[in-house]
Order: sequence, then C-alpha cells, then structure tokens
Amino acid sequence: MSGYDLSRFAINQITTPKWSMPQAIEGYVSQGIPGIAVWRNFLDDHGVEATARHLRDAGMWVASLCTSAWVNETDPARLRAAIDTNKRILDQAAAIGAPCVVMVVGGLPAGSKDLGAQRARIHDALVELAPYARSVGVKLGLEPLHPMYCGDRSAMNLITECNDTIDALGDEATSLVADVYHCWWDPAFERELRRAGPKRIQTFHYCDWLVPTRNLRDRGMVGDGVIDLPRIRGWLDDIGYDGPFELELFSEIDWWERDPAETVRIAIERCGPLVAPRK
Amino acid sequence: MSGYDLSRFAINQITTPKWSMPQAIEGYVSQGIPGIAVWRNFLDDHGVEATARHLRDAGMWVASLCTSAWVNETDPARLRAAIDTNKRILDQAAAIGAPCVVMVVGGLPAGSKDLGAQRARIHDALVELAPYARSVGVKLGLEPLHPMYCGDRSAMNLITECNDTIDALGDEATSLVADVYHCWWDPAFERELRRAGPKRIQTFHYCDWLVPTRNLRDRGMVGDGVIDLPRIRGWLDDIGYDGPFELELFSEIDWWERDPAETVRIAIERCGPLVAPRK
Repeated sequence: MSGYDLSRFAINQITTPKWSMPQAIEGYVSQGIPGIAVWRNFLDDHGVEATARHLRDAGMWVASLCTSAWVNETDPARLRAAIDTNKRILDQAAAIGAPCVVMVVGGLPAGSKDLGAQRARIHDALVELAPYARSVGVKLGLEPLHPMYCGDRSAMNLITECNDTIDALGDEATSLVADVYHCWWDPAFERELRRAGPKRIQTFHYCDWLVPTRNLRDRGMVGDGVIDLPRIRGWLDDIGYDGPFELELFSEIDWWERDPAETVRIAIERCGPLVAPRK
Repeated sequence: MSGYDLSRFAINQITTPKWSMPQAIEGYVSQGIPGIAVWRNFLDDHGVEATARHLRDAGMWVASLCTSAWVNETDPARLRAAIDTNKRILDQAAAIGAPCVVMVVGGLPAGSKDLGAQRARIHDALVELAPYARSVGVKLGLEPLHPMYCGDRSAMNLITECNDTIDALGDEATSLVADVYHCWWDPAFERELRRAGPKRIQTFHYCDWLVPTRNLRDRGMVGDGVIDLPRIRGWLDDIGYDGPFELELFSEIDWWERDPAETVRIAIERCGPLVAPRK
C-alpha cells in the first residue's frame, strides 16, 4: 500500500468513468481508498440495493451522491417533475448512506436568458426541497460551480451565495460542497470557508487548474496546475475541518482516456500528503 | 449603409485579426463604423504616428488601447521593466487619442501559485502607474476578466474589486472597462455598474456567451448566445451611460477564420439595435 493514511480520502466516481459501479468499488478499495462519491448513472446501472450491499461489504463510506436533477425549467409541470426527481434522488442517497446530494442545479432554461429568474427558481426549489431533505436525513450539498458553467450546468456560482442560502435554510437541510476548481480564483474563498466552518463543509473536492486549459472539461490532476493546494489545506486544518477529501476529475481529453487503475495509483501519490488526518 | 445610428459603435480590432491597422480602419469606416479599439500588435506594426494620422484622416474615434503589459513578475527588475513598459503604452495611447489603456494585468507569475501575492502586486503596480496615467491624460481602464482567465491572463476578476480600486485611486487615473463576457454571470454585475455610474464606465464591450463553449477563446457574436443584452443595455441607459459600445470577439475557431468584411457586416446587423443613442 501507499504509506499514506487515506482514511479521509474518497475518489469521485466521475474520475474513472470507464469503470462500472462494482469495478469502481473494487478498484478503489484494492488500492486502499475507503471513500467514494457516487454518480447516479453508475448507481442506476448497478441498482440501489446492489450498490448499497456492495459498499457495505467492501467497507466503504460514501461522501456524496452526484448530482441533483437540474431545475432549469420554465414550464411549471416540468419544474414540478424535476423537484420530485430530486426527492427520489434524496431517497437514493439515504439508501446508500450518502450524507448529501450534490446540488448541480442547471444553468439557464432552454430558450431563456433571464438569469435573475433562474436564480430565483433555484432558490425556490431549494426552499421546497429542504424539509424533505431533513425528513430523510440527507443534506442538500450546495456546490458553487465555476462561473464558466453558468450558462449550462449551474447558475449557482459563488461560495458566498451558497453560504447565504445555508444561513437561510439551516444546516440540518443544507451544507457546503467546496471544490478548489470552482472557487480557487475567488477572493472570498478563504473567508467563506471560514464562515461556513467545519460543521457546514460537507466534503471538499481536489483537482487542479491547468494552464493552459483546453476546454471546459479539462481539469488537472492534483499537482499539475496552479492551485496552491497545501495553502488551502492549511486553511481547512485551521478551521477545524475533519471531513472527506475527494478527488474529482472531469478530463475528457486526458484522464478519462486512461486506465482507471493507473489514475487511482497516481491519485494516491499526488493526494496522499493532502488528505492526511489533522495533526 | 445600415440604417442604424452607429455613432457610439466601435469594433475592437482583435475581432478582425486578419486585417492590418490600415485595413481595419478602412474596413470599419467603409461600413459606417466610427469607433475602434486599437491593439498594440497592429499599432506597433503600422507605427504610432502613421496610425494617429490615418485615424484622424478617417475621422475615427478611439475607444481604448488594448492591452497593458502583464505585471506578473516576481523578479523586481522584470517587474520594474513591466511597469515602465506600461508607461510607454500610456504614452502610445495619448499619441493616438485613446482615452484609456485596458489593463489586462496577467495571471500567476511563472512557477508561482501565490494568488494573494499576485493580487497585491497588481494593486501596487496600479498605485504606481496612477500618477503617470493622470500626467499623460490617459486612464488605467480596469477590466475585470472572467475567472477562467485567472491562471494566465488576469488575476483581476471581479467588477466589485475594480470599483474598489477606482475608489482608492480616483477617477482621474482609473476607469472601468466592462465586458458582458466577463461579468454576465456575476450576481453583482448590475449593482456594480450602478455603483460605477456613467462617469466611471469608460467603454462597454459586447459579445455573447455560447452554450456550449468549446474552448477559452470561443466568444459568440451578439445574439448567438445566452446573455440578455437588451436588459443590460437597459441598465446602462437607466444609469445614464453615454459612452462607447464595442464589439470584441475572441473566436479562434469561428469568427477569426472568416472574412473580416463579412464579420463587420454581421456585427452591424446584430449590434445596431444595441448601440443606438439614448432616447
């Protein structure tokens, strides 16, 4: 094994998309990684019960279920359906022991340019989902997405806004999913991590920002980019954060093309020093 | 001609990179566009005096000179040289009648991951350049660049920060260059345009955000993307802004490959309604 204490380390399943759910579980555990962030497509393929059983048998913990259904619908019936789908996703999360569903809420609705209306729609959807999330014991994990995804993937783009929403909806229903890729550039990043505090930070995502960045799914392996990860890890220790560290790589033209076992091996080498327990 | 009142309309020269300076001047004027934002590479090729004469003879006004030299240098001598270069660029702007130099200040220095130090370096450079800018009557045009350029092109990414800097350095030395591409996603965009007010907004850049966006130089022609430009134009009218509207397209795989005369023709069709004088 690696020699690193990996007890806080999870791999986000989207990092190894060539692997099915069983392959990912076995692939991570066999190299000593105890945590996983589950994606819905792999969960649906393998089935919720089979996945829950496999995770238990493998002794893995689950950092999160990724991701929510988009709520970028202007038609009331379709918006209602999206909210109901999110309740079913919260149920799935509960069934596999995931403490949160990562809320990636969609960008602008098709044919709409009204960003303010979409942000209001997102807020209203979260308000409606909060009691349900509390009732099933799974949090709405608010993840600010990089502003370059505002048009399509999520119009919730600033960590400050997510903290405001957690203030409004309470930390029994909501939590913060912070990702260096989305937030590293934000002058408010450190301040808002401190504002959230150890209780509200649900899970923390690592990867790196490449220079140059070739497309909008070109995240770098930890150490290959320009983000000062040791400094950020230092903030988290100072805050008292003791939750998971996840590696999440969207990498169409590089890591997604590689042998997943090799990706996991390199992930451990690179992330090992950054996922150690607090001293 | 187009039938639109184009008196406030400029094309930013990077939109038609196949054209030399004389070709751009003639190409814009021949279709009725009176304004230009000048780029240094074309200016250096044609020469400052020749360009100034050509612009005068053509009856064109200049929105800005693009762009400043990057100040992302950790070596004191190299940083000093970059600041001196920026003084020469301010001189060039004065010589061609450009009211501002667009400050694109560089991302992280080579080999550095210290974003806080780079932001302090940017601030110090602006503080040092401000008296010189005042002395030559050319403003430091602070342009917040989209967060996706923080790693390489500019670590000055939020309109709020730029307004803070203008507050600190004064509006005789500094002004705001606002671009929908960089700011459209920002929940603070409208508020900060109002905060800047008509006096501090130097020039206003149009283009569009494409969904999908294929790489980091894939800006869309006005109307081809998801930005609500009529709404934003409405804010500017409400504020009392009466300065230039510029089209600026970075578009490696589309518009930069086209015939520039065709780009200008389409630009007029698309931008015409959005550049009219205030009623």
